[in-house]
This record gives sequence, C-alpha cells and structure tokens, in this order.
Amino acid sequence: MPILVMKFGGTSVATLDRIRRAAKRVGREVANGYDVIIIVSAMSGKTNELVGWVEETSPLFDAREYDAVVSSGENVTAGLMALTLQEMDVPARSWQGWQVPVQTTSAHASARIEAIPTDNIMAKFAEGMQVAVVAGFQGISPEGRITTLGRGGSDTTAVAFAAAFGAERCDIYTDVDGVYTTDPRITDKARKLDRIAFEEMLELASLGAKVLQTRSVELAMRYNVRLRVVSSFEEMSDDAGTLVCAEEEIVESNVVAGVAHSRDEAKLTLTDVADKPGIAASIFGPLAEAGVNVDMIVQNISEGGMTDMTFSCPINEVKRAEKALDDARAAGQIDYADLVADTDVAKVSIVGIGMRSHAGVAAKMFQTLRDEGINIKVITTSEIKVSVLIDRKYMELAVQALHDAFGLDKAA
Amino acid sequence: MPILVMKFGGTSVATLDRIRRAAKRVGREVANGYDVIIIVSAMSGKTNELVGWVEETSPLFDAREYDAVVSSGENVTAGLMALTLQEMDVPARSWQGWQVPVQTTSAHASARIEAIPTDNIMAKFAEGMQVAVVAGFQGISPEGRITTLGRGGSDTTAVAFAAAFGAERCDIYTDVDGVYTTDPRITDKARKLDRIAFEEMLELASLGAKVLQTRSVELAMRYNVRLRVVSSFEEMSDDAGTLVCAEEEIVESNVVAGVAHSRDEAKLTLTDVADKPGIAASIFGPLAEAGVNVDMIVQNISEGGMTDMTFSCPINEVKRAEKALDDARAAGQIDYADLVADTDVAKVSIVGIGMRSHAGVAAKMFQTLRDEGINIKVITTSEIKVSVLIDRKYMELAVQALHDAFGLDKAA
Repeated sequence: MPILVMKFGGTSVATLDRIRRAAKRVGREVANGYDVIIIVSAMSGKTNELVGWVEETSPLFDAREYDAVVSSGENVTAGLMALTLQEMDVPARSWQGWQVPVQTTSAHASARIEAIPTDNIMAKFAEGMQVAVVAGFQGISPEGRITTLGRGGSDTTAVAFAAAFGAERCDIYTDVDGVYTTDPRITDKARKLDRIAFEEMLELASLGAKVLQTRSVELAMRYNVRLRVVSSFEEMSDDAGTLVCAEEEIVESNVVAGVAHSRDEAKLTLTDVADKPGIAASIFGPLAEAGVNVDMIVQNISEGGMTDMTFSCPINEVKRAEKALDDARAAGQIDYADLVADTDVAKVSIVGIGMRSHAGVAAKMFQTLRDEGINIKVITTSEIKVSVLIDRKYMELAVQALHDAFGLDKAA
Repeated sequence: MPILVMKFGGTSVATLDRIRRAAKRVGREVANGYDVIIIVSAMSGKTNELVGWVEETSPLFDAREYDAVVSSGENVTAGLMALTLQEMDVPARSWQGWQVPVQTTSAHASARIEAIPTDNIMAKFAEGMQVAVVAGFQGISPEGRITTLGRGGSDTTAVAFAAAFGAERCDIYTDVDGVYTTDPRITDKARKLDRIAFEEMLELASLGAKVLQTRSVELAMRYNVRLRVVSSFEEMSDDAGTLVCAEEEIVESNVVAGVAHSRDEAKLTLTDVADKPGIAASIFGPLAEAGVNVDMIVQNISEGGMTDMTFSCPINEVKRAEKALDDARAAGQIDYADLVADTDVAKVSIVGIGMRSHAGVAAKMFQTLRDEGINIKVITTSEIKVSVLIDRKYMELAVQALHDAFGLDKAA
C-alpha cells in the first residue's frame, strides 16, 4: 500500500481533544488506502517546561541528559495518539526514536539523522498494522544514548521518514493553512498558494515566513519529498493547504510567487574604510566569530582609496556587532572613521523561480517602490530573489504595492 | 568499591529543590566511598497526570501504550537528577530501563523483572562514573517494548538492583522516617524501630502499614537485601530510619514487634449452611472469581448438620461479595438462610518473630482486650501474627492497650 507521512505540531496535539481531531484526519487517510506514519511533537508548552527545568538545574547542561529529559514530551504524545487511533478501531502502535531506530550523529541537542531502517515498521505494516506513530525530534546515537535534533526537529523527522519509506507525500499539519503570497496581516489580498517550488519555499523560510523549518525544506528538496503544509484547524479536504514540490510539478505560475518581509533588520555602515585587498575578510571575520549573522553586504564606490562598507544583520545582534568591530579596531585589525547603525529599517523581498526566465523583474520592483516614493537603501539579488532594505515605516506600503504590481492576488 | 542502592520516591523528587536535597545525600554516600545506583520515581503528581490522560483517551487501554506513556515521568526525574549531581561535580549519568537493560516479562502494566545485566553500569563505574541514576518502575519486554512494574514498582526496581549488583544496602528514601511499633496517630507512645525482620515487615506491609510495597519486601527477603527505610526530610545520619533485615541480624527484640490495624474491613456471615464436604470451596470459589479478597475465615461448630460461615473482606468489596453469593445461590451452587454484613468492624494484629519461641502471646492479647471490655468477633493466627476482628469504635483503644501490654514503648 502507498505510504503517507503526516506530521502534527505542538498546537495540533495540545490537548486530548485536539489529538482526537488529528486522529480523525489520520483515519480518513487510512480509509483512503494509505499505510500512515505519523510524526508527533510534544503537546505545546511541554518542551518549554522540560527545557526550563534542565536550564534551572544546570545552566551549562550535559546535552546528553538534556536530550534524555526533553525527548519525553514526544513519547507521551506518541502513546496517546496510538491509543486514540485504537479507540477508533485503527490498528496503531507508538515508536520511540530508539525503537525504530532513528540513527543520528552524537551531536546531542542538535543531532543529524544518519539513517532510518525501515524493516521494523514495514514488518508491522505487513502484519496489518495501519499506522505507526513515531515520536518526532529524537533519535539514538551510536553510543546508544537518546539524541534530539534541535528545535523544529519534528519537521525534519517527518521529511526524513518520507524519504526513507518512499512516501507519496509528507503532510505537515500546523496552525496556518498554507503558504501565502504574502503576510495576510499586511494585505487582505494575500492569496494562499496551491503549489510552491522547494527553492521558493527555502527563500521564503529563510526570509522569516515561519511555516516550515529551513532544514526540513532542504531535506525535502534533496530527496524530492512532496511536502504539504496544511492546517489542523480547518475542514478536511484533499486540496487543502499548499504543496511544496519540485519545479516540474508546477505547470503554471506567476513570475513572482511571493513577497516576503522582515521587520527585525538593522543596517550598519563603516565609513572611510581603506579599500584594499582583504578588507572584507578583516571586517566580516570578527563578525562571524562573534556570531553575528550578516545578511546583505554593499560596498560603495571607492573615492581616494577609501570606501564605505554597509551590511545588515538582525536587530538584536547590533550590540554584538558594534563590540566585535570596536575590538577589531582596537587590536589594529581594521581601520574605519565611524560606525553608523540604522535600526529603523526593514527588508522586503520578491521571490519566484519565474525570475530565471523573465527579464526586468528587479527593474519593475524598483520602479514600483519609486512610484510610492520609497527610498531603497541596500539591494541584493539571487537567481530567484530580489531583496531591498528600506525605512521600516514604508514596509507595509512596499509589500502592498509589490503584491499589486506583480498581480499576486490572482492565480497564474 | 562497595555499591549502595538509594531509592527516592515521588515526594522526595517532587521539585527541583527536593532533587537537589536528595542529590546531597547521594554526594555524602559517594564521599563515604560508595559507587551509588539511584532509583528514582516520577515527580509526585506526574504519574497520576499521565495515567489520567491515558484513561481519558482509552478506558480499556492497550497496556503497551499505557506503559510507553506512563514511563516517561521517571525518565524526566532520572535526567534531572544526573544533571544535579554533575553540577555538584559528582560524575553521574541517567539510564532508562531499556538502556540497562532491565529485562521484564511482557505482562504490561504489571511486568516482573526477569534479569538485570550488570555489565553496562559496571563498565561505567570502572571508568570513574560514581553514580548511575536509573529510572524506576520500568523495563523492556522480550519484544522490545517498554514495560512498567505496576504501582510502587520503584521499590521493587531498587531491591532488584541491590540483589543484582550485590549492594551492601538498599536505602528507600520516603516521606516517613521509618517503621513504627504502631501508627503514631493512634498513640504517641509509638516508637520507631531500629531494625525489623523481613517476615515481620511483610506481615505489617500486608496489614496496611504503607511504608514499603509488599512485593519489594518479598524480593528483599528472598535475596537477603538489607533494606533501610529513611526519611528524605530529616537530617542526614548513618543510623536514621529502620533497617529491614534477616532475623539473624536482630540480636535483641521484643516478642511483639508491632501492633497493626486496618479500618477498612467488613465481616460477612452466611447462616444455616449445610455442613458437608466441599462447602467451603463452593462458597469461596465464586468469591475468588468475583475478585473479592477474603481475609479471615471462621466456621462455627455444626449443629444438626448446619453451620454458620463467617469471613472478612475489604469494606469496598462487600457489594461484590453479596452479588457473587446471591448469584451462586440462585444457580443452586450453594444454600444458606441469610447473609449478614457487618461493616462496623476493624482488624487489629500483633506481629513478631519472637512469638515462635514464646508461648502465651495470643492469650495475653485476648486477656488485654477482655480487660478493656472489647469483644472479639473473629480470630486468626499465623506463626508470627495474631489478628482479631473487633467493633471499629474500639480500634484505637485496642491498639493503645496492646501497645502498653507488650511494652512496645520501650526497646528490648
């Protein structure tokens, strides 16, 4: 029988009642003829409670014990989900990570899945078991200790199971009903996408559309696992949600798939930097060491051997960036006149695989912003994305104008 | 190095602060030169919460899933205890049942321990690990599923580890400071015993002195594991609590070690039963099938081929007993005139291994009760115990009088 992976996040299994609602969706897919592998998260709030206890007990905790404690939340949900399905006369059993076993690296608290042997679960499917309920986010190290994959790891577990079992699809049940052309809180013209390409989803995920873990999308792309993002809180239907899939599966699409934004950006400018080979390395080396996530980088035209260097980073990393650069200057590693921080900026991006074959997309974006009187401070582009840094007060206006200009309220 | 097993119950690990206090006691024993195996229960209240969820989800639950869910409470405590010890610079790690592995039968929710291989933990002790923190109450079945031992199973886990590792002693930390000559709420002359024999403890445990699980005492007696019952809420000292040990270790003792009582008894009498062979079987067979725990049984002298049959059982099983006997009479299996239930009775017992070699103990008991004007309704005796059923209103008086008469307020 074809296999379907269904993943339910913390809010989708927060109470016994919600677990029952999730189980009904599973029952429906079993009736559709699937053998189903469910990946469950901990009931929402539980993981935070356990992490809180660990951190209070031992601020610099042994990650092996952290994993042993924190993984228990998913085990509880897995057992309760199996019981709920049994009550509905659906043959089901729970699997903890070590029982499958989900083999991971020994990097406790942020382990990577190395292999998922399918024989134990496939043997149960062959015996007539219709549902395997697997505790997400966890595995077992080569040393036989329990590992966890880090936050959001249940999405990764789901995609890895779908890849290992050759599942027809991996459905991610969450508290949003799909991927939108833009944030519906900014414009009510935002439209849910039926399909989106892996590459587009990756750009949107890293731009802050917090629907899916970036790592799980990367994995889905690598193994070509069709991912469906769907709400646990809507009526059941076969075409609900958004399918994240390979480009080839998307027959028609807009040139631009979506408009993303990020509010938590800051712009830093170093003035009067000597424009000589190695200068970028000497600036961004210390920033990387200090753990500053530099995003956009722009270097002005050089005048008299001196230049300005501008970059953006998350707003809560500005202090750390300033200290790293001050220290590097004090140590004689770099030289600059001034460090100017602008924390009133936002990033707006357009994303779409159609850009590869369509010229003039960036030009249309800049023209649209000019028509609204919005000044662009920094620009970066990739093959399928154009991002601009603008004053934060214009962010909503920019998103709305771009959404209109690229006709995103209408399907292709 | 000698090995010590220390078991901490739910109230002793109810909060992070209490876990720290328990860890200090462990640190003290490590400083004394022991390798320590700690058995932990779930933080108090956690197991009930998990059981509640399982029962609400599935009233006739699959016990395999029940075990998978309910065992998670002990895993959390084990990890937190290991972290707490590490913070105190005591090398420790947690072990879940399947990691040891604690091999049990497949009787989920009431499994029995079959074997505890010592090599994994001994290898860690050899490497310098000083404390193994083991999640109590759980194990793994031959099929690789998680099992639990039933309520109070952590005491049994502790004794089984002490037997398997040849531990010098098994300390049970709980919320009482030892075993008393009688219930201190009934008389303030009640005295904590320094030592008590396994056999005496077994009689007292089954009589309702809820200090230790009966099963764990049986196991301790079989493998001659010295058990110390000690409070988690008292100052640390080497002679705290009560040592439960073999008779040979008790040099001097009173003839009677303690006076036990049980309030929740009922007396049932069947009148005019035909006194013929097989009649006892035909009465107590149906009761056993109905799950009625019959305790004391008395058969009156036969008059004209007819007799009365009296027995006691827990008060909350009276209805079930009445129905079982009615049904048996309706089915023509037994015949009796009347069934009289007396639910205003209590059981009072004196227990002591000294009775074996001292005559007149029972006679002294009956005389003491007569002197107080207390009528005895039923009597049963064993080698080291005499029990009587009396009116419940005299229970406290009987306990106090017997405690005085046998001089239990003074050590031997």
